[in-house]
Amino acid sequence: MEEREFVQQRHQEFSKLDRPRELVVACPPMRSNVNLSRIVRAAGCCGVRRVICCGASKVIAKIARNGLEGIEIENHRTLLPILSRLREEDYELVGLEQTSGSESLFEAELRRKMVLVVGNERTGIDEEVLRILDRTVEIPVYGLPYSHNAATATVMALYEYCRQFPRG
Amino acid sequence: MEEREFVQQRHQEFSKLDRPRELVVACPPMRSNVNLSRIVRAAGCCGVRRVICCGASKVIAKIARNGLEGIEIENHRTLLPILSRLREEDYELVGLEQTSGSESLFEAELRRKMVLVVGNERTGIDEEVLRILDRTVEIPVYGLPYSHNAATATVMALYEYCRQFPRG
Repeated sequence: MEEREFVQQRHQEFSKLDRPRELVVACPPMRSNVNLSRIVRAAGCCGVRRVICCGASKVIAKIARNGLEGIEIENHRTLLPILSRLREEDYELVGLEQTSGSESLFEAELRRKMVLVVGNERTGIDEEVLRILDRTVEIPVYGLPYSHNAATATVMALYEYCRQFPRG
Repeated sequence: MEEREFVQQRHQEFSKLDRPRELVVACPPMRSNVNLSRIVRAAGCCGVRRVICCGASKVIAKIARNGLEGIEIENHRTLLPILSRLREEDYELVGLEQTSGSESLFEAELRRKMVLVVGNERTGIDEEVLRILDRTVEIPVYGLPYSHNAATATVMALYEYCRQFPRG
């Protein structure tokens, strides 16, 4: 059997962006600070600079690691006003939610300048927030438990954004 | 400002596969049963039927949810023997690891019949396991903390596999 020579290279150079990421991640009040913190760590690795969180949410440094160092965490009381503002600044507001009009993330052509709007673990994206979104995307599910954890789904969406914009 | 009408549809029909997934997820002894359990839940949602875990690893039902119901969890003492067997059964062994020869997951054309080999949170994929892999893939990182959590990286790879094989 042929053997290839793969040698671990743990701390290699990271990928460079041609321009700063124009992706903002917007989280509603989450039930779990663990989920929020996992999102922050993944966002940091993806080169995201700006994460919006709401209410009493708190990023746990041990989980987010130094993802926090590269990211500006903005605390807001609720999502709606800041989302309206970002929409006026020409960000496309994309909700990660199963809705009557959602596209499969597998096929969605994303816009560079976008806000990824995350849903609460239990209640998803609020109705009033859904109303101002430009589009909603969903991740196909094939088996039990038929719904991804909120942080897991967000991580998949972050991956897809980076795949479409590997250089920023 | 135009308003679209998005209505939440939480428990809608799941996506159908034309054939069972030929993806096996193989985890070494992990430091964290939480990470393993997150992987199992995501794998369940992706339609994966078979997850290999090692040593004292234990799936936490509360996190994996009923992802466990659709999945056969195989416990092995170590990864190497079962990976050798799967390779003989014509599975492509793909390690998720930064190595001297790894391809970007953004560009890697995956094979349907594959084993996704996960790394331990601290030590990654063992040298002896690396030696029998067919290929290694890595996820580009752009910012601090410059390395994804092991479960997060696995989730991204599961997403990419489903994206490439949306119908199984």
